[in-house]
Order: sequence, then structure tokens, then C-alpha cells
Amino acid sequence: MKLKAKKIDLESRDQMVILNSSDAENIGLRSQDRVSVNHTDNTCIVVVETSKSLVEEGHIGLVEKVMKRLDVDEESPIVVKPTGKPESVEHIKEKLEGKELSEHGIREIIQDIVNQRLSDIELSAYVSGIYSQGMNNREIKYLINSMIETGETIEYDRHPVFDHHSIGGVPGNKITLLIVPIVASAGLMIPKTSSRAISSAGGTADIFETLADVDLSIGEIKEIAEDIGGTITWGGAVNLAPSDDMIIRAEYPLRIDPYPQVLASVLSKKKSAGAEYLVMDIPVGPNTKVEEMELGRKYARDFVSLGEEIGIETSCALSYGGQPIGKAVGPSIEAKEALMALEGKEVPSSLIEKSTTLAGMVLEQGGIRDGKEEAKKLLESGKALDKMKQIIDRQHGDPEVSSEDIEIGEYSKKIYSDEEGYVDSVNNEEIIKIVRAAGGPNSKKAGMLLNKKKGDKVEKDEKKYTIYSEYESKLKEAVDLANHLKPLKIEGMILETHPNIKKI
Amino acid sequence: MKLKAKKIDLESRDQMVILNSSDAENIGLRSQDRVSVNHTDNTCIVVVETSKSLVEEGHIGLVEKVMKRLDVDEESPIVVKPTGKPESVEHIKEKLEGKELSEHGIREIIQDIVNQRLSDIELSAYVSGIYSQGMNNREIKYLINSMIETGETIEYDRHPVFDHHSIGGVPGNKITLLIVPIVASAGLMIPKTSSRAISSAGGTADIFETLADVDLSIGEIKEIAEDIGGTITWGGAVNLAPSDDMIIRAEYPLRIDPYPQVLASVLSKKKSAGAEYLVMDIPVGPNTKVEEMELGRKYARDFVSLGEEIGIETSCALSYGGQPIGKAVGPSIEAKEALMALEGKEVPSSLIEKSTTLAGMVLEQGGIRDGKEEAKKLLESGKALDKMKQIIDRQHGDPEVSSEDIEIGEYSKKIYSDEEGYVDSVNNEEIIKIVRAAGGPNSKKAGMLLNKKKGDKVEKDEKKYTIYSEYESKLKEAVDLANHLKPLKIEGMILETHPNIKKI
Repeated sequence: MKLKAKKIDLESRDQMVILNSSDAENIGLRSQDRVSVNHTDNTCIVVVETSKSLVEEGHIGLVEKVMKRLDVDEESPIVVKPTGKPESVEHIKEKLEGKELSEHGIREIIQDIVNQRLSDIELSAYVSGIYSQGMNNREIKYLINSMIETGETIEYDRHPVFDHHSIGGVPGNKITLLIVPIVASAGLMIPKTSSRAISSAGGTADIFETLADVDLSIGEIKEIAEDIGGTITWGGAVNLAPSDDMIIRAEYPLRIDPYPQVLASVLSKKKSAGAEYLVMDIPVGPNTKVEEMELGRKYARDFVSLGEEIGIETSCALSYGGQPIGKAVGPSIEAKEALMALEGKEVPSSLIEKSTTLAGMVLEQGGIRDGKEEAKKLLESGKALDKMKQIIDRQHGDPEVSSEDIEIGEYSKKIYSDEEGYVDSVNNEEIIKIVRAAGGPNSKKAGMLLNKKKGDKVEKDEKKYTIYSEYESKLKEAVDLANHLKPLKIEGMILETHPNIKKI
Repeated sequence: MKLKAKKIDLESRDQMVILNSSDAENIGLRSQDRVSVNHTDNTCIVVVETSKSLVEEGHIGLVEKVMKRLDVDEESPIVVKPTGKPESVEHIKEKLEGKELSEHGIREIIQDIVNQRLSDIELSAYVSGIYSQGMNNREIKYLINSMIETGETIEYDRHPVFDHHSIGGVPGNKITLLIVPIVASAGLMIPKTSSRAISSAGGTADIFETLADVDLSIGEIKEIAEDIGGTITWGGAVNLAPSDDMIIRAEYPLRIDPYPQVLASVLSKKKSAGAEYLVMDIPVGPNTKVEEMELGRKYARDFVSLGEEIGIETSCALSYGGQPIGKAVGPSIEAKEALMALEGKEVPSSLIEKSTTLAGMVLEQGGIRDGKEEAKKLLESGKALDKMKQIIDRQHGDPEVSSEDIEIGEYSKKIYSDEEGYVDSVNNEEIIKIVRAAGGPNSKKAGMLLNKKKGDKVEKDEKKYTIYSEYESKLKEAVDLANHLKPLKIEGMILETHPNIKKI
């Protein structure tokens, strides 16, 4: 059937077209069926939605992304043909049935995901299958390779290429903003690509975006990295293993991170980004992605062995993830705390310890002895700060920015303790929920500043933490949530008394 | 945030609203987030989609179903509030992790499905979880009860209430159109509610709809059934266990029928429809839902024991499902074949055998001896045909309809054998695919008529089957598919020869 294009502006419904109900009936199509749409040499496979009035007869509603893929304007002729299910849906079903997938099956799935041939329902079944049934290392290797093949790769002229990565889950983890300038100031090259928040209060890309551009092209990344040794950019902007971000579309609303997908996601991105050496940070603690040391060790073993299979020499560190790193949680406020650390201002020692240990591991991979000591020196000497300013400058930010310039949400609320005691625990998950309620990570200025952390003494009416938001209504929601969740548990030193009162 | 309603006409996106991108950003929402929308006393929870132009600032796009649920017109004031994930998503995750669900968890999931609080991604994860991890009988019982509670139920004044059901997968299974009039003409009451096609070429409701209305209200069903003993209606029209049809939204594109969901779906519908006695037909054969006798027996055991738990006395028959029942596949053409059987015209004996055996089992549950013989008598005497005309009449069809009146797709193609031999197999799945390619079950007149079935002798150039369609383009697709799939496998009687040719 030949129809005329009509632009329909619906964001993030990439794989959909809208047909007039009569047209749909005439070619025997109904909502959720799949068609190929074609204009000259461009074809894409999309899911059909029907409407009686949004699109008139003889027209076809196309979202902007489909118009771009077909390279058409309004009124361009479009040929619509019904098509069957893609083969990959059968392979998704095999995985749900607990079967091992073949290299071919995995490639079909990843290609269909990248080409946006799967509907939300099918994509969710893939994520659910991997989460529910797992994958063995052979399947994960095929998955990594398919994810690399279906995207761009960065080839550096300068070698070796160092990289580091934290698997998320622990809030306040702004360590990349320390590690990259430290390593680069030691003369090694570390072009770091990061993700935006999935289920956290802010990914590294969200954080660094408050200081500079993170949407850089491959050419820019290559030029800057080879020149000054360091970059911090958003991986999604350069189409490295793009299937990953598409898979996140289903992982995010379900709040699940399937184990094989975590491994494949990290290693495919790192390999595509040209990494030859990798230091992995695996935070372990209650309410993080990795709750038990045993699982952390399994991740470490699998990262090392899968890394070897695809040619990345990988070292892993299991770090303490039992509470936020540093005091700040939320994009802008974390950037501020990282700058304070680089400026030599007072920040929690745990932030310095973690960043220099991991930076030190990278330095040692690069043949520098006493890596951690060396990392500390680079930080304390101000060399890392200079390098950071260079990176910010080259990524179109203001190199003269200081931690004091960074703006946080104008609406804030201080939360005080209504009892005296010690902080027994700080709940990561609840802190993330509160920052998200305050608008983060979409709103960069949403955040939380912890005045008290685990083990700290708290007086009655002493400040525990402050919540920030750009919006009054969001602040209220976040405060209500915080009062309900109580993310800091306070225990008195006296747990029970048994007074002996004699009757008179 | 207060916005004004604007009608957006998108079919079958029930749980969605569209916000202008600026409004969405102002309240910190992004695509796929969830909000509550409220007008006076009516509130529903929906998923957000954003658009720069489809909905202007200050307005909110509502699909018809949401407008009805809120009881609003264009420009009505709507209050929008961000809300978190529903609790049921956590329970879905537990199932994906292989955990046993509690009664509370299952109820939460089913209530959210019925209230359309789950997005496609979440619904698909539920279906995937049940398919991948299964459920024990305790969970299935809770599931059945939740599915009943969240819908309407029919309470009859006349007792007992008989029912029958086939679990699908075998094409051409028009037996309900024989069983209901046979049983009703014996004086028993059998108000049969049926489904529309899920993954088949036509459900019973699709087939009977070519003869009469199937969208009857509970009041009408009750009145007709108590009056004349039989009805054949679409279960979806009367809101019996409505979660079932919503779950099918995710099962259909994935072509999966999770085992626990099949049991719960049948038994919740039957219990809601008032059934006290039930005869289950479980077709077994290659390329049906039940491929092995062992699985068929497991279904039988579980139907009987779960039936007992919820107060339905259930008998099961495992039937031969290795090829289509009768010759006709597709809504109209199956209605025609069923009428021919009732009219005493020649139809395949397998159709008569199966229908009278199952009808006989119902009669025996009702205390009538030699059920099958009795069923045959009712069929041959024309009493069942009279009852069928009565049912058609009461369901607003033409009681004078004869099998000859029924129209089949005007475009047709006869397929001839290009070899001589015997039909070794008839592939159910491939036949369904061909009828679906021809437009079925959406187009009622799409279908297939088999001239040859398993074991039949076929001459070269003899007709094997005919394909029918309402649309020329769909016919061509179906014929191409048939030529590719070759659903009838022909084997010669001589499989190999070893001639002894002496050298001269």
C-alpha cells in the first residue's frame, strides 16, 4: 500500500508508525502488527499503531526518527508492507525456556535491537529472559562481540589505552572525576566514556555534564585523548555498542540489571572504546548492585576471564559500597565535591582513599611503581587539578570553574535528628530514591548533602543531611519521602534499661 | 500540576497520556515515567509520553479510554502528579528470580494489570517470568482467585451449569458449534463463553460471530441460557476475568502460552462464568500447544485438582491433535463446516467423533447414560440443528441460515500436488501461519479447505487444498508462504530402489 508521510511528534517511540484505522483494516493489519515501510532505498521495520483521526486516510504517521531513517519529508510517498515476526523473537523464547543461545541467535537478537525491530514487549522479554535464566560465558562472549559489531569503534594511534569503570549501585561515586585527571597527569592515556544514570541518582556523564560537554564525537575524543591524555564523555553520544542503551529502555522501568548483561555491557563498551587495560571497581554492600562478597568475586573472575578472551587486560577491586562515597549525591553537587577534592579542600577521606587506590592500580598497569602513593602525590601537588582544567577546557567547559561556582537546587531543606545516638546505617537505595524524588538525575541540581555518615555521633536536633531541588513541589515530595524512609538509622548507645524501683 | 484535557485518538494505548515536553520537564518527568491523573473523584495511574507539538503547553493528551475512566471532556481540568513504580513490579521481579509468589503479591500484580497500571515492558516481564519460571499449584490457585475477584461473575438461578473448553493449538477445532447445541438439546444448560484467536487462525468466538452476535451482556447470556439451555458468546465482552485478555496483549506478540497462565486463564473464566461441571478437551500432537502425551496428562491432572479446589467438577479428554479437525480452517469456513455437520451433510468422521465424544462426556456428567450414543442421536435426529437455530436466533443472527449461505473470501487459489504419494503429515502450525497470512482471523473470510488429510492417497496434479482471502495481496502472500512451507508432506510408497542392472 502506498501512503503519504505525515510527521507525528511523539518522542522515544522510535519503532512505531500510525496508520488510519481504515487503511489498516484494508491491508489486514491491526495494532501491534509489524510492517516494513519503504521510501526509495531506505526501509525500516516498525510496529503499527492505529488511529481514527490522528492520521487521515491515505497518510501514514511517522515519528521524527523514522522520518530521518527513511530520509523523507511530509507528503513523501511511503510503501507499507505487512511482515512477520523477526526470527530473533524465537531466540528470545528459547532463552526464556532456559536454552543456551547460539552465536547466530544472539547476533540476530542484538541486530534487531540495534535496528529497532523489536517492540517494547519483545525487548522486555529479552531482558527478562537473560535476568531469569542467565547466560554462560560462551554466550556472554558472543553477546559482547555482537554488541561491538553493531556499533562504532574507536581506534587510537597512541597506545596503550587505559580505562576504568565502576559497576553502579553506590550513590555519590564521583571517583572518575578524580581518577581520569590523576592518571592523565601521570602521562598515561585514559579516554573514559561513561553512561548516564540507569537506576542511580546520576551517572558519571550526568555529573561531568555540569562542568563540560560530554556529547563528543569520536574524532574529538581521539584528538583530545591523544593530546592531553584524558577525556570524560558520554558513551551514548558516540554510538559505541549502541544496543546497550536500547536494552536499558527495558531494564530501567523494571529496575533490573541482568548479570550477563552487566558484563557484556561494560566489556563491549570498553572494547569498542579501544581499551587495552581496564581497572574495574566493584562496590559491594547492602542495597548496591552487588550485595555479597561472593557475587563480587564472581564478577571479578568473569571480568578478568572474559576480558582476556576479547583482549583487555583487566584488574578488579572490590570496594566498600555500604554507604555513599563522600558526602554529596546528585549530579551538580557531586561535581562540586570532586572539584573540592582536586582543589585540596576538605572532603571525606574515603573519597580520596578510593580514588587514589583505583588510580594507582591504573598507574601500576602502566608500569608506575607504588601507584597509590604516586596518585596521592599527583592529587596533592595540584597536577591533577591542572589536568582537570585542561580536560574541561578542551570539552568546551569553563576551565576557570571552581567548586564554589557550582549551583545547586535553589529549594533546600535541612533534616535534623529527633534523637541522640550513632548512625548505624546509611541506606544507599533510599538515598537514591530521595534524590530521584527531588528531580534527579533529569534535574542536575537535585541532590543531597550528608552531614553525618555511618558511625558518626549525632546529637538531638543536629543536622543529619540537606535535600536540594530545583522545584518546590519536588522538594516537598523528596522531604516527605525522606521523613518516611529515614535513610540514616540512628541507634542510641543504651538499647534497653531495667531500672530497679523499690516500692516505698 | 493542573492541565486541560485534550483528546488524542490512539487505539489500544490504554495506559498512556501525552504531556508537552516543557510541562514534563517542569515537573521533572520523562518518557516512560508514571503519573496519577485525576479529575474530581476519578483517578488513574498512567505512563507518560512526551511530545513537543502534539499537545500544547498547559494541555494533556488523553486517549479515549482514559477520558472515559476519568469521565472528562475536552478542556476539563486534570491534576497530574508523579508517582513511583507500583509495588507489583517488585513481585514480577521476584518471579523472574524464581521465587514463589505470595497470595498478596499475585493479587497486586493482577489488580495492576486489570487497572492498566502496568506498561507493556512490565506486562511482558510478568508473562516472561511465568513462562520462564513457572508457578506451583498454590500460586496458580491464588492466581485463579485474583483473576476471578477482579472481574464480573455470572450467577445462574438454574442449576447445574455445564461447560466445556478446548485448550487451543489445533486448527479447525469448531467442535463447540456442535457440542453446545447437542448438550442443550438434551435438556442440560451449557452457556459457553469462548475466546477470540490468540495464536490460532480463529477462536470459537471469531467463528460463531460469522453466524450471530457474540458480544452479549451478562443479563442476555443468563436469560438465553436459562431459557433455551445454550449460548455461545465472547467471554471478553462480559468482563469475566478481564485480566486474561490484558495478559494476552503480551502473550500474542511473543507467541507464548505459559503453563500456569493457561490453567488459570481457563479455570478463572469458567468459574466466573458460573460453571459447576466442566469437560476439558486437551488436543495432543506435534505443533499444537501440547506436543507430548506426558504434558497432556499433566494438564489433565492439574485441571482436575485445581478444578476441585475452586469447586468445578472437571473431566478431561486427551484428543488427537496431530492435524486439523475436519477440513476447514478459518472463521467463516469453519462455521460453514459446523453447520454442514448439524445439517447431516457429509463432513469428516473425525469431526463427528470428537464432538460427540466430548458432548457425551458432558451428558454423562449430567446423569445421562451412554452419553456418546445419545449425542449422536441428537445430532442425527436434527434436534441439535434446531437448537442451533434457536441459539442463533436469540443471539440476533439469521436462524434460517444454511451452510450454503456462508461467504468465504472471494479470492482463492487451489494448490495441486506436484508428485504422487501419500500425505505423511499435515503441519498445524504452518496451516495457521498460512491462514493468518491470508488475513485471518481479523478477516473472517480468510481460510483454507483441505482436500487431503493425513494418510490420504494423492495423485500428481490432484488438488491438495484451497486458500481463500478477502484481499488479493494477502492471498498472494498466503500462497507464497504455502509454496514455501508445504504444510502437507507427501511421501511416495517406494522410498528407495536398488535395481540390479546387469552389464551387457
